[in-house]
Amino acid sequence: MGEYPIVSVLVIDGIIVSRGHNQRIQKGSAILHAEMDCLNNAGRLMAADYQRSILYSTLSPCDMCSGAALLYGIPKIVVGEHNSFLGPEDYLKSRGVQLEILYDLECRQLMESFIKNNPSLWYEDIGKEII
Amino acid sequence: MGEYPIVSVLVIDGIIVSRGHNQRIQKGSAILHAEMDCLNNAGRLMAADYQRSILYSTLSPCDMCSGAALLYGIPKIVVGEHNSFLGPEDYLKSRGVQLEILYDLECRQLMESFIKNNPSLWYEDIGKEII
Repeated sequence: MGEYPIVSVLVIDGIIVSRGHNQRIQKGSAILHAEMDCLNNAGRLMAADYQRSILYSTLSPCDMCSGAALLYGIPKIVVGEHNSFLGPEDYLKSRGVQLEILYDLECRQLMESFIKNNPSLWYEDIGKEII
Repeated sequence: MGEYPIVSVLVIDGIIVSRGHNQRIQKGSAILHAEMDCLNNAGRLMAADYQRSILYSTLSPCDMCSGAALLYGIPKIVVGEHNSFLGPEDYLKSRGVQLEILYDLECRQLMESFIKNNPSLWYEDIGKEII
């Protein structure tokens, strides 16, 4: 069985303060997407810390992870790729979040391979049934 | 020290399948708002389960918890009160989520008392500094 190849890091003042990866399989969790795991691992930060942070993710953040970034006022998200999955990027921008899409070929190939080999896991993670 | 008086339940086909409460203090978690804890405690559900569920919360769901509901296609959220805190309810409605606000006096008094007695905890939980 595959493992979600999605990771995330939180950077403050140029330093990685937390790392996370999707934990649906490992912890049976419906909320520990990589970005959420990363924010959870960061612990209880001050609002001022979030407000000068950058959140990195393999993939375009979904509604939940985008919402977490909005809650804490994270001003910038760097996204490996957004072709395999496109989160609510326009909404994030409308709320003032800066998005940088890297169009990284390695991220995209990782995601495409995972989705091809694990369609049921993939659709479960984004709240969809396999068509 | 106070404890966040915010709880949540997930109901499917009239049955409570999961319960949650804010775990910021107990688990040092920045992501375990009551609704998130509830969704986490529910484990890995099928998309079809979420799509006929109702999420209940003491308080209007924040950006993160609203995003989680959107991710999983939860069609209805019942909110105890939204005077102490107002989440992105208009955005939820624009995405097709039905919201029912109960204007429950007990929920509101619980929240007002908690916020008055624990302002730093409260503002930390919604990503703000105390003014």
